[in-house]
Amino acid sequence: MVGLPARGKSFISYKIVRYLSWLSIKTKLFSVSSYRREEYQVQPTADFFDPNNEESKIIREQANEDAIKAVIQWMNDENGCVAILDGSNVTRQKREMVAQVLKDHYVEPLFLESFCDDETIVKSNILDINSTSPDYVGKSQSYAQDDILTKIKYYETHYEPMDLEADKNLSFIKLININSQIIINKIESYLESRIAFYIMNLHIKPRYIWLSRHGESQYNLEGKIGGDADLSERGMQYARKLKDMVSKYVPNHEKFEVWTSTLRRTQQTAQFLPNPKKQWKALDELDAGSCDGLTYQEIAEQFPDDFAARDENKFEYRYRGGESYRDVVQRLEPIIMELENQENVLVITHQAVLRCIYAYFMNSPQEKSPWMSIPLHTLIRLEPRADGTIVTRIKANIPAVSTYKEKGTSKLGESGNDAHTMAGEVITSDLQGH
Amino acid sequence: MVGLPARGKSFISYKIVRYLSWLSIKTKLFSVSSYRREEYQVQPTADFFDPNNEESKIIREQANEDAIKAVIQWMNDENGCVAILDGSNVTRQKREMVAQVLKDHYVEPLFLESFCDDETIVKSNILDINSTSPDYVGKSQSYAQDDILTKIKYYETHYEPMDLEADKNLSFIKLININSQIIINKIESYLESRIAFYIMNLHIKPRYIWLSRHGESQYNLEGKIGGDADLSERGMQYARKLKDMVSKYVPNHEKFEVWTSTLRRTQQTAQFLPNPKKQWKALDELDAGSCDGLTYQEIAEQFPDDFAARDENKFEYRYRGGESYRDVVQRLEPIIMELENQENVLVITHQAVLRCIYAYFMNSPQEKSPWMSIPLHTLIRLEPRADGTIVTRIKANIPAVSTYKEKGTSKLGESGNDAHTMAGEVITSDLQGH
Repeated sequence: MVGLPARGKSFISYKIVRYLSWLSIKTKLFSVSSYRREEYQVQPTADFFDPNNEESKIIREQANEDAIKAVIQWMNDENGCVAILDGSNVTRQKREMVAQVLKDHYVEPLFLESFCDDETIVKSNILDINSTSPDYVGKSQSYAQDDILTKIKYYETHYEPMDLEADKNLSFIKLININSQIIINKIESYLESRIAFYIMNLHIKPRYIWLSRHGESQYNLEGKIGGDADLSERGMQYARKLKDMVSKYVPNHEKFEVWTSTLRRTQQTAQFLPNPKKQWKALDELDAGSCDGLTYQEIAEQFPDDFAARDENKFEYRYRGGESYRDVVQRLEPIIMELENQENVLVITHQAVLRCIYAYFMNSPQEKSPWMSIPLHTLIRLEPRADGTIVTRIKANIPAVSTYKEKGTSKLGESGNDAHTMAGEVITSDLQGH
Repeated sequence: MVGLPARGKSFISYKIVRYLSWLSIKTKLFSVSSYRREEYQVQPTADFFDPNNEESKIIREQANEDAIKAVIQWMNDENGCVAILDGSNVTRQKREMVAQVLKDHYVEPLFLESFCDDETIVKSNILDINSTSPDYVGKSQSYAQDDILTKIKYYETHYEPMDLEADKNLSFIKLININSQIIINKIESYLESRIAFYIMNLHIKPRYIWLSRHGESQYNLEGKIGGDADLSERGMQYARKLKDMVSKYVPNHEKFEVWTSTLRRTQQTAQFLPNPKKQWKALDELDAGSCDGLTYQEIAEQFPDDFAARDENKFEYRYRGGESYRDVVQRLEPIIMELENQENVLVITHQAVLRCIYAYFMNSPQEKSPWMSIPLHTLIRLEPRADGTIVTRIKANIPAVSTYKEKGTSKLGESGNDAHTMAGEVITSDLQGH
């Protein structure tokens, strides 16, 4: 990474790590400031970053070297695929040194500069740093702001932004004011162009992503998986209620798009919403292949080895003639890219698909995501922010069966977390950080 | 489009039209020079493009106006989605005029400049123009080259390349020397970013893409579709022969990657090749849903309406619980993107999937692609070039059943186009232009 403080470098780094990890590309963040914190365990003031402060310079250089060493070790010894070195790298000399050291160790460098002269963005980033950086724990907001501004001034004295002429030998992506302008130099591999494409679709406009499973289906009632069943009576109730919940909770609800799969149960769930709709084959439920239409009990009896293998590694297990969670993630990739680009949108889809979408926004590890509980008859609101995503779950208060199968059994949960009998919707909200 | 003559504008335009059309995004090319040819039906000499030639200026402006009018009409009356106006648009004043006219008619302009100061690329483009442009039919190569060079000089006198400062209010993508550097300004929609991503992956290094279906399978012998059967005896012979054919015909064959689907018959076909292999779920055969494992005869009997509906519109028809050709195209999109980025590669996959890949490279219309004949036991070589793709088919001369079902029947072809008995491989080659 390249750029002054408060240019969103860490935010962009986190997004890339989350996106590539979700795609099973082994990616890791190496933050120079966290190595500096190991070296120098007190909260530094801005003076620490004064280029003329010889004492702190040694510490800063040491932290930088440690981070680079860690990158090289991880790439070569642990088969890492993409390492992100989150530092400032503001001078040409520094960047050339970093590039050379990496190349000497068979690591291909790609620089990603966040250049930003839009004061509104910088101010908003300063507020984020103040609330999230360990350097400002226990400090007042005004202290933190002044300190960051002084730190920025120190860096500005020797900042050399990347440019097509002077840096033409380096592979780089330069973002100007998030992505209102982008300059790309010498990008050749597919992976590098994917990263550029991803960043191109990011935006920081506040928005919500709304998610819901289809209403309870006939197959849900019978405990069968897959198929293309109609909604049950209660599922239909949820479809009607969903219209009211959307009017009540979604700002500007008449404008946003509703996305469904090509299966009847999601389209029936969306049927009362007056919004423009898009059907995606990519949102169809995980294909259970030979097990389509069976109950978990039947699968355990007819395919005992498969049943056990799936519990053992649910993310990787591919149903005979069907799909694994990993396969679903691959086909959801264009959906995620378009979701990043979109403003408000409501996605009505299926349990496994929602788990994968949810895992992306929540940064959940692959081995856990297939076990997440996403009950029926619940509207979920995701609010992506710099420091994580705020999830709000709004239960429609319409009973439904549980479709949650616990590991090691073929029984569906009876916790009744859907079958509560309270009077109105129940809303719970929490922030899940990086 | 923006740029001097011989900067590959038409080549890039064609590629984008082909890519988006393949994705079912209604796209059309409007070439200013073809409107100019309507206005002025003789072959012009370079002087025609002299900015001081008042007489020809009127014709050139008229052609430009006609092309823009056609764009607007097509976008608004025929629901076009992406129109490409292939002209030079070298001055800022001209671009602002074009942008304004389009905006006045509710068409959002995105400028795509091909800037090129690499003499090698320009020279190679001049040779392409000479061999493909109607303006030089019947002229000698040296005449054409001199004429194009004079034409370029005229345009250079008033060329104002796009830049981030002066053109900051326009949405644009500027390619510098194909895509060694890219500058992107104010791109907001997902479609625009997709176009940028696509261009980022283009390259003009000479290379071949090799395609093959799996060897004949047990299911092929029984006339069944879908499934995950093993190769037949003859299929296994083809797998062994494929290794020899690759050594014989593929330059640097030890280096290239082999891609297969996740199904056994493609992996068995690749088994004797020593190359690095990649398995893609996205290369799996079109999912026949409820019809998986049936013969066409059985489908015609058990699902007569579906059988007829599929023949009626094979591209759109989605098998119950399965896929349509359109669905396959959607999931193949990442494969195409990675194929564009790759150099030599061999893809071993299935009939419907190969038809879709083939349709992309051959620019075949959607209604025709599901009916293309791609026989078993044939290695296909595609050579993408500026003016089209050269296809070479190398038949392995190992008999196999035909899997080609003619429209309106449930019988498989008996033309024996695979079951010939000649001694060696049979090679046929032809160029299919844009």
